[in-house]
Amino acid sequence: MFSAQTVIRDLENIRARGPLIHNITNFVVMNLTANALLSIGASPVMAHAEEEVEDMVSLASAVVINIGTLSRYWVEAMKKAVRAAQDNNIPVILDPVGAGATSYRTATARRLLEIGPVAIIRGNGSEIRALVDSGARTKGVDSLETPEAAVEAGRLLSEKYGCAVSISGPEDIIVRGEETIRLGNGHPMMPRVTGLGCTASALTGAFAAVNPKYLEAAAGAMAVMGICGELAAEQARGPASFELHFLDWLHLIGTREIADRLKITT
Amino acid sequence: MFSAQTVIRDLENIRARGPLIHNITNFVVMNLTANALLSIGASPVMAHAEEEVEDMVSLASAVVINIGTLSRYWVEAMKKAVRAAQDNNIPVILDPVGAGATSYRTATARRLLEIGPVAIIRGNGSEIRALVDSGARTKGVDSLETPEAAVEAGRLLSEKYGCAVSISGPEDIIVRGEETIRLGNGHPMMPRVTGLGCTASALTGAFAAVNPKYLEAAAGAMAVMGICGELAAEQARGPASFELHFLDWLHLIGTREIADRLKITT
Amino acid sequence: MFSAQTVIRDLENIRARGPLIHNITNFVVMNLTANALLSIGASPVMAHAEEEVEDMVSLASAVVINIGTLSRYWVEAMKKAVRAAQDNNIPVILDPVGAGATSYRTATARRLLEIGPVAIIRGNGSEIRALVDSGARTKGVDSLETPEAAVEAGRLLSEKYGCAVSISGPEDIIVRGEETIRLGNGHPMMPRVTGLGCTASALTGAFAAVNPKYLEAAAGAMAVMGICGELAAEQARGPASFELHFLDWLHLIGTREIADRLKITT
Repeated sequence: MFSAQTVIRDLENIRARGPLIHNITNFVVMNLTANALLSIGASPVMAHAEEEVEDMVSLASAVVINIGTLSRYWVEAMKKAVRAAQDNNIPVILDPVGAGATSYRTATARRLLEIGPVAIIRGNGSEIRALVDSGARTKGVDSLETPEAAVEAGRLLSEKYGCAVSISGPEDIIVRGEETIRLGNGHPMMPRVTGLGCTASALTGAFAAVNPKYLEAAAGAMAVMGICGELAAEQARGPASFELHFLDWLHLIGTREIADRLKITT
Repeated sequence: MFSAQTVIRDLENIRARGPLIHNITNFVVMNLTANALLSIGASPVMAHAEEEVEDMVSLASAVVINIGTLSRYWVEAMKKAVRAAQDNNIPVILDPVGAGATSYRTATARRLLEIGPVAIIRGNGSEIRALVDSGARTKGVDSLETPEAAVEAGRLLSEKYGCAVSISGPEDIIVRGEETIRLGNGHPMMPRVTGLGCTASALTGAFAAVNPKYLEAAAGAMAVMGICGELAAEQARGPASFELHFLDWLHLIGTREIADRLKITT
Repeated sequence: MFSAQTVIRDLENIRARGPLIHNITNFVVMNLTANALLSIGASPVMAHAEEEVEDMVSLASAVVINIGTLSRYWVEAMKKAVRAAQDNNIPVILDPVGAGATSYRTATARRLLEIGPVAIIRGNGSEIRALVDSGARTKGVDSLETPEAAVEAGRLLSEKYGCAVSISGPEDIIVRGEETIRLGNGHPMMPRVTGLGCTASALTGAFAAVNPKYLEAAAGAMAVMGICGELAAEQARGPASFELHFLDWLHLIGTREIADRLKITT
């Protein structure tokens, strides 16, 4: 049963073990997500060359794939990384950035999902909905405007690909099969800092590296994101000081902040 | 007639509409320019794959092309983006970073200018002068050492390509045909933060998305840059705290700061 | 004889001359290393296109090659840059990020070393040890677990390639042939900020641009890194505020901080 204790335990394990998280991510957020992983106590590595991607995956405890700035060469590396993660039996987190905005992104995200089991898909509502194919859509996801439409799309993806789906928004909703966790933490400043969604995916990798219950791992990462966002907002004047305090809080956050602030809304 | 009211109105429109600004920019500044666009109230997107660049342009309200870290593949995407912007009738802002430093950059910037009408070229004096070809140079731009030489080069470019030209420096000078706006805001710390020139180009994209008078749009972006620079400098101890306060001020700046501080020097 | 006076003199020369440092570095740290170079008073440029890399090297006072995020295309540019630096008689600093982690990285770093004389190799102990080939290893570097094993590896590299080798760690150790400088500055927060090793390499480029005694230049850069780290730690709450204060201190550091704090441990 997911609770503050789950998050506290997973966070302690991340800090004790410093799991290596292999990221193939976009140019915009690489520095931020590496720093977020270091702040929380994990060890980031970024590598995308086809020549080394398999070697690097074999050293890692989780792989985070983020399609924010694609190109052909990078897509090939992503495919190799997903296959290598499968061979090494480590979790893959997929962040389908911008799925739905261009057909190239939607198609790439789907192709990666077809290659092999991913542990967790993490995106916002519209990205998650874009991954549900037209067949599925006609079956049940008619109105796509509400969070519930995204949840229904997430549930379809979870069943189709056997993964957890983490949907960020004013309320963060994580689904896996019939299970659901809803979290009410966070702050409106968060979407005004570039790459905090990508950071959520990177941290999801760190939690998945220490907790094989991926529904819980995904929720733990969103809980820490949201709570650190609230703490940062109390000290920030604008988006840049918000980002600074947020990263500092990933380093500072402990039992008390989690126990006092976690808002499980179901 | 350009005034503080013009800048205030355009800024309000950016915040009300949140225009999507498509950036094909350099690796060094991607995170900074995305954050600057978010801070001011616009929506940044970065995408450079040939497979999707046209789709992304079709969603955007302006395209910003920055040649700061080139390679063949990226140049092709830039060309496609300029053509797509033309087809979609949205403004292109070109930042010819390092034109004049290597012939590859100078040639690439010129090739992009030849493809189709850009709305605004934004660079420093030496970059602007480098874009004027040798023929033009012999006709009038003999001394290249003064700001006035850059202004003359800018005017030649403006006539040749039918665009506004925004020249940054201790005094920012924006020209279009016979028109000129000169602005006296800014701070000497600004060139000690990497990518503030690129940030000026990104913000120019946001202003051009809401104001089709590109001379005014270019000037509005430089006005906000300069004023936020002055405000940041009052709180900074060094370049990093300067950058943080600058980004926060892009979020905080309002009517009062603009009305009180804008220095139109002609 | 290396002393605080050496560092102070070199730092003054960097600030007076603003040497252009050409970086071919990884995507994660480009913004940070550019800002670090600006903060200390140098002029960074990033360029990796084969079409322009030689032109850019010809303008620079030092070249910094960092293999943190490799791909085939970039490796070719790195090779060209090393050759061009040789032709232009300017120092090359090589940061073999992740050598030893994948064979692609180890092989790439070695190939770059074979092309031409580099001035300084800068890495952590395990990267330095990975560059020593198996033949050398059997001769003397049997235990690879102690800093002394890294020093021995560094000395072998120094002799083989005629360069200085700068090994970062709790104690920074710089060797060249029989000479050694050991420095005791720094702070445990430093490895929790991504890219501070890469930043050390970039600053090493700035020092090498003004001091052709590369042992001293490498030590000067590590001295400034360590002292700014100590100063930043006094004001930081976490890794992000640490990074901000560190960059500000690169701008603020002067004679007094260096004279008061430099810890030469041999």
